Amino acid sequence: MAPQLEPFFKQVDDLSGSFIDRLRKAVAIPSISAQDENRKDVFKMAQFLASELESLGAEVEQRPLGKQPGKEHLDLPPVVIARYGNDKNKRTILVYGHYDVQPALKEDGWATEPFQLTVDSQERMYGRGSTDDKGPVLGWLNVIEAHKKAGVEFPVNLLCCFEGMEEYGSEGLEEFIQSESKKFFKDADAVCISDNYWLGTEKPCLTYGLRGCNYYSVSVSGPAQDLHSGVFGGSAHEPMTDLVNVLSKLVDPQGNILIPGIMDLVEPLTEEEKSLYGGISYTMDNLHESLGSETGIHATKERTLMARWRYPSLSIHGIEGAYSAPGAKTVIPAKVIGKFSIRTVPNMQSEDVNKLVFDYIKAEFAKLNSKNKLNVWLQHDGKWWVASPKHWNFAAASKAVKQVFGVEPDMTREGGSIPVTLSFEQATGKNVLLLPMGSSTDAAHSINEKLDKRNYIEGIKLLGAYLHYVAEEPMDI
Amino acid sequence: MAPQLEPFFKQVDDLSGSFIDRLRKAVAIPSISAQDENRKDVFKMAQFLASELESLGAEVEQRPLGKQPGKEHLDLPPVVIARYGNDKNKRTILVYGHYDVQPALKEDGWATEPFQLTVDSQERMYGRGSTDDKGPVLGWLNVIEAHKKAGVEFPVNLLCCFEGMEEYGSEGLEEFIQSESKKFFKDADAVCISDNYWLGTEKPCLTYGLRGCNYYSVSVSGPAQDLHSGVFGGSAHEPMTDLVNVLSKLVDPQGNILIPGIMDLVEPLTEEEKSLYGGISYTMDNLHESLGSETGIHATKERTLMARWRYPSLSIHGIEGAYSAPGAKTVIPAKVIGKFSIRTVPNMQSEDVNKLVFDYIKAEFAKLNSKNKLNVWLQHDGKWWVASPKHWNFAAASKAVKQVFGVEPDMTREGGSIPVTLSFEQATGKNVLLLPMGSSTDAAHSINEKLDKRNYIEGIKLLGAYLHYVAEEPMDI
Repeated sequence: MAPQLEPFFKQVDDLSGSFIDRLRKAVAIPSISAQDENRKDVFKMAQFLASELESLGAEVEQRPLGKQPGKEHLDLPPVVIARYGNDKNKRTILVYGHYDVQPALKEDGWATEPFQLTVDSQERMYGRGSTDDKGPVLGWLNVIEAHKKAGVEFPVNLLCCFEGMEEYGSEGLEEFIQSESKKFFKDADAVCISDNYWLGTEKPCLTYGLRGCNYYSVSVSGPAQDLHSGVFGGSAHEPMTDLVNVLSKLVDPQGNILIPGIMDLVEPLTEEEKSLYGGISYTMDNLHESLGSETGIHATKERTLMARWRYPSLSIHGIEGAYSAPGAKTVIPAKVIGKFSIRTVPNMQSEDVNKLVFDYIKAEFAKLNSKNKLNVWLQHDGKWWVASPKHWNFAAASKAVKQVFGVEPDMTREGGSIPVTLSFEQATGKNVLLLPMGSSTDAAHSINEKLDKRNYIEGIKLLGAYLHYVAEEPMDI
Repeated sequence: MAPQLEPFFKQVDDLSGSFIDRLRKAVAIPSISAQDENRKDVFKMAQFLASELESLGAEVEQRPLGKQPGKEHLDLPPVVIARYGNDKNKRTILVYGHYDVQPALKEDGWATEPFQLTVDSQERMYGRGSTDDKGPVLGWLNVIEAHKKAGVEFPVNLLCCFEGMEEYGSEGLEEFIQSESKKFFKDADAVCISDNYWLGTEKPCLTYGLRGCNYYSVSVSGPAQDLHSGVFGGSAHEPMTDLVNVLSKLVDPQGNILIPGIMDLVEPLTEEEKSLYGGISYTMDNLHESLGSETGIHATKERTLMARWRYPSLSIHGIEGAYSAPGAKTVIPAKVIGKFSIRTVPNMQSEDVNKLVFDYIKAEFAKLNSKNKLNVWLQHDGKWWVASPKHWNFAAASKAVKQVFGVEPDMTREGGSIPVTLSFEQATGKNVLLLPMGSSTDAAHSINEKLDKRNYIEGIKLLGAYLHYVAEEPMDI
């Protein structure tokens, strides 16, 4: 055990009741960023955080982000930034979290009052924001408090960046991060974000990768207005026929992307990487449970995880302009727009993907010999992110997991995106670690959101231990 | 010229101002069947028709149809039935029309008040219902009046059946026709419906065929709820991928139905039928004008008309359950339902078509090796209709066209359905003729609906002449 951890751990246990009280106070503030009428509560939550940090001895600022775009009568909630410690001989760790929450109403189906932290007999702490993301955010505050009360020297300089609009698109944050890259964030040696979840319920994980997303639209248009299928069926090229044909050429039912060249952009699987998947704590039953069906494509967990994390995928989301209501309508739609997206992975560059997609779709459409017009364009893209899991930032977190939970963490990636991750990497140029506190059953964004007491209290120990190991790690990546 | 036509024609010309006044009075009653608040006007229009018919000497009844299904606070408008003449030595002709109209508001873009008949300098008579279907309905009344005033013996017994719910699904009519088949309709020797349009603007046509329609739904379902494409893309079978694949196998971009066996059900094209299309007054420019684009499939008018009238077509209308809004959403829809329909022609029987469709779709889905579930079913079907254009009913109408307009009529079919046609054929067992009064530019159902004065006045002569030639035709079919 690293020196000084024992008294810190003991102090966390001793303060656990007080830490749960702190979470209770935070959950009681309905800081719902998506609802105008709760904006005052989001500000109240910012003030709560700032006061707590100040009372712990941090230098705190609430940075305004201006008016909310499109809702200029509303001020955006501030970014609460704080510095704890300013010792040139210590590493500086930047941590991110958010203090706003998803909407919640008892009548949505909650078993308890959503804004009243309720602990059941199995020590599950129910309440909106408990796991997403108030528990983790308060975790950092609790780490500071436990150090102070235990009389243990804080091992690093801590920079906190807590936002209040994460559940509503992180309005204004990207610009803030860019503008502070050479100011508030400039001393950061590494970044740690605690805002995702364990893959299961028993074993902690460290997350080192996210997929990106290129979202496309492809339109086919022909007649000047919608047509009656009785009058024109058979005598006019139908945009819907053409579009369905083109969409059917993109991906096969086994999930294989049919666009030539796309798979050539994917970083080859090495034997070393391949060997990582077998040890991950995940089963096909976990997949089936989350699908609510047994319609997984792959037979093994290894191949399933690879498909989710390290290979691209293509999903067709829907068609705009066609008949989409229940019932029957004998329309030939004049213009239809198909929507699909490709989840991207290393080393797919967005512009390379776009070129392959555009060229292929145009070539496939040309084969149809239709007189209709096709157009295809990128709606938006977001880059994939992969960090080096061998960086000292990950090595420290791994040792902390071993220390607190007695197991090696799963090294995971995620199939979706957390855009702020890439923003911090780009702004600081430093390694970013995703270090989750909650588990896969916490129901973030759903009814009956909860955080297990074990995940919270041991999670506080984990965050503290991580900082101690960070302080000890050699510089080599 | 058949005896007695000259004084009748002269009388029509002399009464033309009065006939236009009659249309003006009818257009002024906003008998919109789709709008609850206008139901009283639909009844008012029924009363207007009944009074006019009575004053002309017809035996008239307004037959109630009960309450409107799903809107039980509303009475369905009555069917106005009338008998004019009861001479066992004359043929009895049943005519159908409707006295309700589509909705219309000046602010929809009408150049004139929609319920105020407005005649412009080119003798186009604008007003809602002018061509659809008040002009043709009053045409029959005008024929009676002109005969009376000219002192010409009416050549047939006339049965009128005028409904008031045609623009809202002909609620209650089918049951009425069936129940009266051996009563009011039992003497009918032939049926004439004036409720469609010339193919162009110059040449009258007789319509002897309509396509049917089999409307299908095909669903694919997999996961228990919509999924996030970041988390599950690549690891689960996606219903949308499967559905798009299946839909792409139904029809090619040139309109060829790919379901094996469907084309084998189609009555072969004879040389005799083939020769009919060349003479039809229709051009590719007409097609392009109505499409608002040059996206027709076929190079010639003959092939275009055959595609519309005598070959089946398959149109994909849309997808229910997928993302259909503007913008971007990274959803994997859990269940999607594709909608498509096949326009049917002789000799396609609905149940044969269904079996081919169901078997093919299930077989194509099986090839996909997906774990998702597919279901395919018929939403509704309506049979095609083709009458014998050599029947004396058509021969009489053809002579009437020649007499009034100086040309042989185009013998046409239509791509869409007019369900009442088949109902009358089945209920009476007699030949049904579609004898349009209006032209292709009349904009029925649209803004600025109109009926040209020429079409109205010469149309009255046409309807009268038709009845005279009907009286003279030999019995042979």
